[in-house]
Amino acid sequence: MTQPKPQSQPVKTAITPRREEDFPEWYQQVVRAAEMAENSDVRGCMVIKPWGYGLWESMQRQLDGMFKATGHKNAYFPLFIPISYLEKEAAHVEGFAKECAVVTHHRLEVGADGKMRPAPAAELTEPLVVRPTSETIIGATYAKWVQSYRDLPILINQWANVVRWEMRPRLFLRTAEFLWQEGHTAHETSEEAIEETEKMLGVYETFAREHLAVPVYCGEKSESERFPGAVKTLCIEAMVQDRKAIQAGTSHFLGQNFAKASNIRFQSREGREEFAWTTSWGVSTRLIGTLIMAHADDDGMIIPPRVAPSHVVILPVTPKPETRDAVLAAAEKLASELRAQRFHGEPLVVEVDKRDLGGGVKSWEWIKKGIPVRIEIGPRDLEQGTVAVARRDRSPKEKEFLPAAETPGKIVEVLQSIQDTLYARALEYRNANTVSIDTREEFDAFFTAKNAQKPEIHGGFARAHWCGSMKCEEDVKTRLKVTIRCIPFDAVEEEGKCIVCSEPSRKRVLWAKAY
Amino acid sequence: MTQPKPQSQPVKTAITPRREEDFPEWYQQVVRAAEMAENSDVRGCMVIKPWGYGLWESMQRQLDGMFKATGHKNAYFPLFIPISYLEKEAAHVEGFAKECAVVTHHRLEVGADGKMRPAPAAELTEPLVVRPTSETIIGATYAKWVQSYRDLPILINQWANVVRWEMRPRLFLRTAEFLWQEGHTAHETSEEAIEETEKMLGVYETFAREHLAVPVYCGEKSESERFPGAVKTLCIEAMVQDRKAIQAGTSHFLGQNFAKASNIRFQSREGREEFAWTTSWGVSTRLIGTLIMAHADDDGMIIPPRVAPSHVVILPVTPKPETRDAVLAAAEKLASELRAQRFHGEPLVVEVDKRDLGGGVKSWEWIKKGIPVRIEIGPRDLEQGTVAVARRDRSPKEKEFLPAAETPGKIVEVLQSIQDTLYARALEYRNANTVSIDTREEFDAFFTAKNAQKPEIHGGFARAHWCGSMKCEEDVKTRLKVTIRCIPFDAVEEEGKCIVCSEPSRKRVLWAKAY
Repeated sequence: MTQPKPQSQPVKTAITPRREEDFPEWYQQVVRAAEMAENSDVRGCMVIKPWGYGLWESMQRQLDGMFKATGHKNAYFPLFIPISYLEKEAAHVEGFAKECAVVTHHRLEVGADGKMRPAPAAELTEPLVVRPTSETIIGATYAKWVQSYRDLPILINQWANVVRWEMRPRLFLRTAEFLWQEGHTAHETSEEAIEETEKMLGVYETFAREHLAVPVYCGEKSESERFPGAVKTLCIEAMVQDRKAIQAGTSHFLGQNFAKASNIRFQSREGREEFAWTTSWGVSTRLIGTLIMAHADDDGMIIPPRVAPSHVVILPVTPKPETRDAVLAAAEKLASELRAQRFHGEPLVVEVDKRDLGGGVKSWEWIKKGIPVRIEIGPRDLEQGTVAVARRDRSPKEKEFLPAAETPGKIVEVLQSIQDTLYARALEYRNANTVSIDTREEFDAFFTAKNAQKPEIHGGFARAHWCGSMKCEEDVKTRLKVTIRCIPFDAVEEEGKCIVCSEPSRKRVLWAKAY
Repeated sequence: MTQPKPQSQPVKTAITPRREEDFPEWYQQVVRAAEMAENSDVRGCMVIKPWGYGLWESMQRQLDGMFKATGHKNAYFPLFIPISYLEKEAAHVEGFAKECAVVTHHRLEVGADGKMRPAPAAELTEPLVVRPTSETIIGATYAKWVQSYRDLPILINQWANVVRWEMRPRLFLRTAEFLWQEGHTAHETSEEAIEETEKMLGVYETFAREHLAVPVYCGEKSESERFPGAVKTLCIEAMVQDRKAIQAGTSHFLGQNFAKASNIRFQSREGREEFAWTTSWGVSTRLIGTLIMAHADDDGMIIPPRVAPSHVVILPVTPKPETRDAVLAAAEKLASELRAQRFHGEPLVVEVDKRDLGGGVKSWEWIKKGIPVRIEIGPRDLEQGTVAVARRDRSPKEKEFLPAAETPGKIVEVLQSIQDTLYARALEYRNANTVSIDTREEFDAFFTAKNAQKPEIHGGFARAHWCGSMKCEEDVKTRLKVTIRCIPFDAVEEEGKCIVCSEPSRKRVLWAKAY
C-alpha cells in the first residue's frame, strides 16, 4: 500500500512518523489526527469520538442488516454475570475469569476521611463480573426458553459493551472496555450448529471484503488458539501494513459444552431429552483498528467509501466577500444533489465545511480523517461551471476538474472506484507478503528482522507445514513470537514435513506475528 | 382506553388479571405474554427479549434520526467513572453516588475453598463506579476538547447502558441496568444552552405524540424534583391507565455547574476565559413501560404502528393438505407486496407465521404481542379473492374482508388509522382524568382511593395552585404520595391560593401520583 510512484526525495507527510519509520507510533498518530478516539482518564477505557463512532455506526448498521437477512434477531442480556456462572465451564473460567472488572458493592458512602468509599454494609453476597463475553449468562436464559425441539433454533445477536482488563491497552486494538456484537445460537443438531458457525464466518468474510475492502484468510484455529470452551473456532485473519496478522472476527462451534454447563436441554423429535448444540460469533471495535492499519497512509486515515460516516466533503473556496454567497449557494446546491444519490442502497452523506478557516487547513483535516472524496468550489469554478474533485486514494495534490452539472451523477462511480482500488491494493500487498516456506532456516529468517533497529519489520505470512503438535506451535511462539493464525479452508492436501520437527504433515497452515 | 362498547357480561380476556382488577400484576402479565422482557438471575437486571428489543430498536432509530436532524452526532464514553469524579459536583454526588455498582477489583482467583473470589492483589487503587449517568466523565473529556469559543457548541449524544441499583426492580420501569440515550452539549452562552434544553424537550414531545401516540404534559420540574446538579429540569409527563404519571423524558439546563466541576473553560469572543454552559437530556427503556401502560388492554400489548417491530402478520389458514401450497404461496405473495409499501418512510415489516400450530393459538399470540394488523388467508379467501384483516385497536373478533388485490394499497391507511385511534384514546383518557382543583378537601379526596381494597385507584392528574414552598410540596408527598409532576409551560397566570397553605399563588401546577 505504498504510493504508486515512490519518490526518491523525502516527501513531507501529514502524519509523523511515517509507517516505515515507526509503525506503532504512526498508528497512534493516525487515530489522533483522524479524531477517531482518545484515551480517557479511566485506565484502558477509550473515548470513541464522533468520527470514529460514525464509522462504527456504519459497520454496525450494515452488519446488522446481514445478521437479520440470515434470520437473526437482536436482544439484550445483563451486563453483570454472577461469578458462579463463570465457574460452570472449566475451560471458559480459565480463559475469562482472569482479568475482569469485579463489582463487589452496590453503594458508596462518605468515609471517616470525608471521601467516598464502597459502603461496607452494601457488600454483595456474590460478587458480579462485568461481562467479558456472554455465553454463560445467555446460556442460563436459553435453558429457560428451551423445552422442546420446537423451541429451536434460537438465533439471537446482541450489540453490547464488554470489559476485559488490559495491562497494555491500545486504542481500538486492546482496550479494557470495547463495543462488539455477539451472536448466540442454539440448535437441535450438531450439523445445524456447524452450518451456522460456517455461515456466520461467511458473513464476516463478505463484510470484510466488500464493505471494509480488507481481504482475509478464512480457516480454523489450532487447539491452543481456540475460544475457551469451544469445540471449533473459525476465524478471519487480515494482514495489515506492518505485515502482521489481526484476527478480525471469530465464529465458534461450542458443541454441547455450554449447553451442559448451562443446562440447555430439550425434548427431541424422538422424545429423548438432549442437550442443545450452541454457537457464538463476534466482531468488535477492533475492526476499526484493523481498518486503520490496513488502509491508512502517511497522510492519515483512508476510509473505504462503503463504511465512511460521510462520503463527500464540499469545501467552498471564498477568497472575496463579493463572491462568497454565490459560492456557498452553489456548494449547498451540489450537496443536496449529491444527497439524492445512493451508494449501495444508502443515501450519500455529504458535509459542507463552511468554517471560517483557511482552505488548506480544512482540506488537510479531511485528508487526515480519510473522507473518500473532497470537492472544492471557488469563484473561478462558478465562472467555468466546474468543480475540483480529489480522491483520498490518490495523491493529496491530484485534482480532477469535472463539469458541475455532471458531478452528482459521477460521484457514485468515483466512490466505487475508490472502494475497488483500496481492496486491490490491500490484496496485492497481502499476496505479495504471503509466501510458502519449506525449511526451518528460511522460516526463522522470514520472521527475523533484517534491521535490529526496527524489530517490527519482518516477512509477513508464511504457509508452512505443521505436524499438529502443540509442542512445535509453542516452540515457534517462544522463539519467534509467531503463531498459527489458522488452518486455512483452502489448504490443499499435500505431503510435507513439519517446519519445526520435520515429522510428516499433510497440510500447510498460516503462520504470522499477530496483534 | 376502555373498549368502545363496554359489556355487562364478564368477558374472557387473554390477560389475567384485568387492568381494573390488579393493575400492577396486569402490567407484569402483559410484559410476559407479549414476550417483551423477563427478569434475569442477576438481581434487578432484565433480559430484553427480541420482541421488546425490536420495539426499542424502532424507537432508537427514529429518535436517532431526530437527534441527527437537530445537529447532533453520536460518540461513546467509558462505562466506568472514578469515584473522585462523582464527588466534584456536590448536588450530583448526593443524587447518584448512593445506589450504584462499585468495581473494586480487576481480577478473580481461586480461593482456599476452591471457589472464585476477587483477587486481593488486584484491588483497584481507586474504585470505579458503573456509570449511573455520564455528566462527570463526559465533562472531563469536554474540558480537554474545548479551548476557544470556536470549539463550541459540542452537540453529542450517546446510546448506552447505565446502572442504578434498585431495591424494588420492575421490568422496564425500574431496573438496575437499563438502556438509554444521553445527550450532552456545551455552549458559549446561557441563552444558547437554554434553547438547546427546550429544543430537545420539543423533540421528546414530538416523538411521544407522533411516534408513541402518547400525549404528554411539558413543563419544568420543581426544585425538589430537579436532576441533581441541574439549574432547570424540563420534562414530559404521560398519564397511564391507572391514572398515575410517568416521567417519559427529561432535558436539563445545567448552567455552569458541571463546567465548573469538570473545568470546561474557553476563551470567549471577547478574549475572556469563561466556563461553558452545558445541557443533558435523556430517554430510556422506561419508554417501553410507558407505552405498555398507556396502550395495552386486557388482551395484551398494543403497539403503535410507527414503532412496531413488525407491522403486519399474515396467518395462512391451511386446514387441508391439498390447498396448503396455494395458501402459502398467496401469503408470501401478499407479504412481498406489503414489504414494498412504506409507512412514514420506512418499509413495512411483515411476518408470515407458517408455524404448525392451530390458527387460534397463533392469532392470540400475535394479539398479545400487540402487532398492529393481522391478515388471515385461507382456501375460501383464495376462491373469493379476499383476505380477512383484523386491527389490534378493535375487538379480537372483528375482521374486515378486503379484496386481496387492494390490500397492499390499503394497509398503510389502516396503520395510520390505528396510530390515530391510539393517540385519540390516550388523549381522551388523559383529558378526562385531568381536573382543576381549588380546595384542599377536594384535592385530598381526589387522590384517596374510594375503595380501600384497591388503593391504586384514584382521580388522576390535578391542576392546583401551589405557593412555591418545598414545605407544602413535602406535606402533600408525605400524606398522599402525590408530587408535582411539572409546572406546565401552558399554565396561565391567574390569582389563586396554595392548595396546602392557602398562601397566594399565581400559577397552577400539575400534581399526580407517579411511577
